[in-house]
Amino acid sequence: MTSFIQAAAGKEPCDIFFVNARVFCPFTGEWEDNTSFGVKDGRVAGFGTYAAEQTVDLRGKRVIPGLIDAHVHIESSLLTPSEYARAVIPHGTTTVFADPHEIANVAGTAGLRYMLRERSRIPLDIRLMLPSCVPATPLDRGGAVLSCRDLSAFVGEEGIAGIGEVMNVPGVLAEDPDLLCKIGLSAVVDGHAPLLSGENLCAYIAAGIQSDHECTTAAEAAEKLQRGMYIMLREGSTEKNLGALAAVVTPATAPRCCFATDDRHADMLAADGHIDDCIRRAVAAGIEPETAYRMATLSAAGRFGLNDRGALSPGRRADFCVMDDHGPCTVTDTYIQGVRWTDPGYRRPEILSVPFSCAPLTEESIAIHGAGKARVVGLVPGQILTRELSEEVDGVILPDPSRDLLKLVVCDRYRRGGCGVGIVNGFGIRDGAIAASVAHDSHNLIAVGSDDASIIRAAERVIAADGGMAAVAGNTSAFLPLECGGLMSSLPYDKVAASLQSLEACIRTTGCIENPFMYLSFCALTVIPEIRVTERGVFEVDAFADVPLFSSPKK
Amino acid sequence: MTSFIQAAAGKEPCDIFFVNARVFCPFTGEWEDNTSFGVKDGRVAGFGTYAAEQTVDLRGKRVIPGLIDAHVHIESSLLTPSEYARAVIPHGTTTVFADPHEIANVAGTAGLRYMLRERSRIPLDIRLMLPSCVPATPLDRGGAVLSCRDLSAFVGEEGIAGIGEVMNVPGVLAEDPDLLCKIGLSAVVDGHAPLLSGENLCAYIAAGIQSDHECTTAAEAAEKLQRGMYIMLREGSTEKNLGALAAVVTPATAPRCCFATDDRHADMLAADGHIDDCIRRAVAAGIEPETAYRMATLSAAGRFGLNDRGALSPGRRADFCVMDDHGPCTVTDTYIQGVRWTDPGYRRPEILSVPFSCAPLTEESIAIHGAGKARVVGLVPGQILTRELSEEVDGVILPDPSRDLLKLVVCDRYRRGGCGVGIVNGFGIRDGAIAASVAHDSHNLIAVGSDDASIIRAAERVIAADGGMAAVAGNTSAFLPLECGGLMSSLPYDKVAASLQSLEACIRTTGCIENPFMYLSFCALTVIPEIRVTERGVFEVDAFADVPLFSSPKK
Repeated sequence: MTSFIQAAAGKEPCDIFFVNARVFCPFTGEWEDNTSFGVKDGRVAGFGTYAAEQTVDLRGKRVIPGLIDAHVHIESSLLTPSEYARAVIPHGTTTVFADPHEIANVAGTAGLRYMLRERSRIPLDIRLMLPSCVPATPLDRGGAVLSCRDLSAFVGEEGIAGIGEVMNVPGVLAEDPDLLCKIGLSAVVDGHAPLLSGENLCAYIAAGIQSDHECTTAAEAAEKLQRGMYIMLREGSTEKNLGALAAVVTPATAPRCCFATDDRHADMLAADGHIDDCIRRAVAAGIEPETAYRMATLSAAGRFGLNDRGALSPGRRADFCVMDDHGPCTVTDTYIQGVRWTDPGYRRPEILSVPFSCAPLTEESIAIHGAGKARVVGLVPGQILTRELSEEVDGVILPDPSRDLLKLVVCDRYRRGGCGVGIVNGFGIRDGAIAASVAHDSHNLIAVGSDDASIIRAAERVIAADGGMAAVAGNTSAFLPLECGGLMSSLPYDKVAASLQSLEACIRTTGCIENPFMYLSFCALTVIPEIRVTERGVFEVDAFADVPLFSSPKK
Repeated sequence: MTSFIQAAAGKEPCDIFFVNARVFCPFTGEWEDNTSFGVKDGRVAGFGTYAAEQTVDLRGKRVIPGLIDAHVHIESSLLTPSEYARAVIPHGTTTVFADPHEIANVAGTAGLRYMLRERSRIPLDIRLMLPSCVPATPLDRGGAVLSCRDLSAFVGEEGIAGIGEVMNVPGVLAEDPDLLCKIGLSAVVDGHAPLLSGENLCAYIAAGIQSDHECTTAAEAAEKLQRGMYIMLREGSTEKNLGALAAVVTPATAPRCCFATDDRHADMLAADGHIDDCIRRAVAAGIEPETAYRMATLSAAGRFGLNDRGALSPGRRADFCVMDDHGPCTVTDTYIQGVRWTDPGYRRPEILSVPFSCAPLTEESIAIHGAGKARVVGLVPGQILTRELSEEVDGVILPDPSRDLLKLVVCDRYRRGGCGVGIVNGFGIRDGAIAASVAHDSHNLIAVGSDDASIIRAAERVIAADGGMAAVAGNTSAFLPLECGGLMSSLPYDKVAASLQSLEACIRTTGCIENPFMYLSFCALTVIPEIRVTERGVFEVDAFADVPLFSSPKK
């Protein structure tokens, strides 16, 4: 501390003196032209004239504080944390608030320890939110159950930022004691409350939950803002909510709004970017650039009570991005704690091996018996919400690609148990199947296809590799191994992105929609309305109960 | 907690249901018309429809969250905390962040304990900031010295909100170890840095100091905002900075700006009001009413990291004001934790008696010997800054009311020590004197007058009563006893206000300016530029040193 104050006062030298910068100030929303600042020990010492060992000329370029993702599951990128860092840092991201609840569902506290070890090895500051809902609901059976007592062991550890999204809304409203205990563990508690409104929303907030990243309409976001929640505008691979929510962002609400990607595959990170992409989309949706920069920096830091970042001001981390002169946000250089980031190259990560105990699929294990009016999972483009459709079907002629009524299969990967089988509309696969070991949040084996044989073939690839993503289209196929818990690949990020492209190219020859693996991964997620399929069968989210596939079976 | 969630969800009754309200939402800056909310256990349960034991119809009136003073010295009102509460609650104030550094300078930790006892007896939520600079500078000698160790005993106690204004700027820049220790005691540290700028300002912020309430120009406030400080726009009895600073307030900066009164006498509280008055002045100065409401509520709560107030939202305190339909802020009713405040009437407070050891003044003890070019304290209307003037004078013909060069006397009240004597311009007293036991921050005896006899008479009244304020004008005089540490009166607030009016009426017959006692109280304050008088004599703030009265004495 002592010599830092002297350096800030200009009485002792700084480490680096950055000159000729155009710096964005999120406190005022304004630019400071032609300014200079000193950095010492990785933190901004001050603005003015400083002696330093090194001087860096920023050539009049625009500088904004390091970008912050307010809510992400790194596992959803399919990358290990070190490769995730290589993918996002060049886009200006310096801090992410990551809820490792995917790996926690698979591997429990060993998964959390793995993420803590990985975060300590990389320059990206991954602040972990302790997963509050493992499993997502009491009915779900994954690889672990995390109690309040389990989480409490992590509270106060370096890198732990709070309690992750509280998805078990019925549990909150019913005052589940263990859930309330978890909420009480930290001053920072993230929420997840799609479509929650009125008095129930008030009860959820009254329980101590402070944020939401599940809004899909401006009206929903406006109500939650008004009731005091922080709103994280989400733009993931399939959860495309930013455009619809932009209308709620004003200079007055910007301190309560930030950006989140939640679930963004490696290929989208590579092709579109990360929070820089959110900024560009926000500006395209009508948000002022300066408001978007504030959301991506100070607002996110403020939401988590972090005063050591989110702005370039004395004492805060010298995390910042240099942008080129064109457009709202094209990052050319990222500085972390005053040091320009250069790609360290690929380093083989530690692999967290988890047993994959899934019985082989058979035509019988995935058969649909009966006929009548059935509950069908209806995909919604650009959303992870689903609609419950009702269709007359006959089990013996399913899947029926002509009506886009495909078979959706979820099989227990932990205890060699059975499969739940449902029907889904929206994938558009005419001749093939995809299967994966990524299926929120229990991460059982999941598959969708236009015929049983393709489904079985795709699933076999995943099971044989102890996890992965497989596509089968006629005689062609593609595969990406996910050997790290069945969720993450140990490959370099660009290889994972390319592999995802190959998988998608393979299945899209059959008429499939874009991003099918991301949509597929949410088809088992029991905490987002309206209807899902688990290894037990069809699940209705509003009723919070398993229901029969056939709502009106033919006698 | 348990039944609160059920009440919020509307499944169990609330205590009170408020209907037909027009509620201001500081999260969005917008009004919610024709709304209703339930309150349970003093907190907002939720908005919607609620069963309750009691229903209160707010008749469509405008409702804003309870007002917050971000920085005040209650002692400066001359009222005890209970009477202060009676004065400000009807104006809508429900929380104040109070730095008890006046009583701490007089009585040390016993003064802090006194304030903690008093706060526990009243509905106004007084959050105490631990005084960081007792005495204000190492040169000052008052009734106590508070070390980091002394303050640390209070950290974490109910009602303690952080570390109060760090006024010893040179001590920060010189890295005084005890001062840095104090700054490290809390995550919330208020500042006080008049005119500080550039690299030295950066060093002050880098040390961990987060706010400033001493800005006197918009340029000064803009620089401090830009460097990451919270700005408290101050409007006290003589410190009238709000109008000059209004230009820096925008919807973007409002989260970093709030209101403070710092030092406001009982008569101004009675006549003009409190934070409601700040809001009216802010609107008159061009700030949007909704921006001003946000500053007075959520911004202030946010600056101190309090998530339990500052807005009417589920789980937060049901502190709010009902306003009439006219103008930006006329409060008709104040609700604290859901209960409409009604005046409990005067209750005799506990009195903190402190010995008053001041030797009687004599013509010799306050004589000025010599002649030549002298350093003169120049008052600045509406400011506590002073200007250093230079005047040719002769001690034997001082005071000289014809040139408004009055004698300013400060006498040791703790150790029966001597007097420092200086010259002041700006009071305008032609025939009389005023004296008081309120003299920031050491609170020695202070007096100013047009002749030695009047000064001695006024001082005698104060000494005889062990503290007070006295005015002498020819044959007339007025007096207000301040038996509580020489700083606060035990009288009811309206009587104190009336007495202040009598004191002022008495001395203004002699040509004196308005608010002379408040100006007088700052004439000894060694932490505000440019020039002061202490019991040792003349003090130059920038040099941070005692200096001779005569800059060029006649040989």
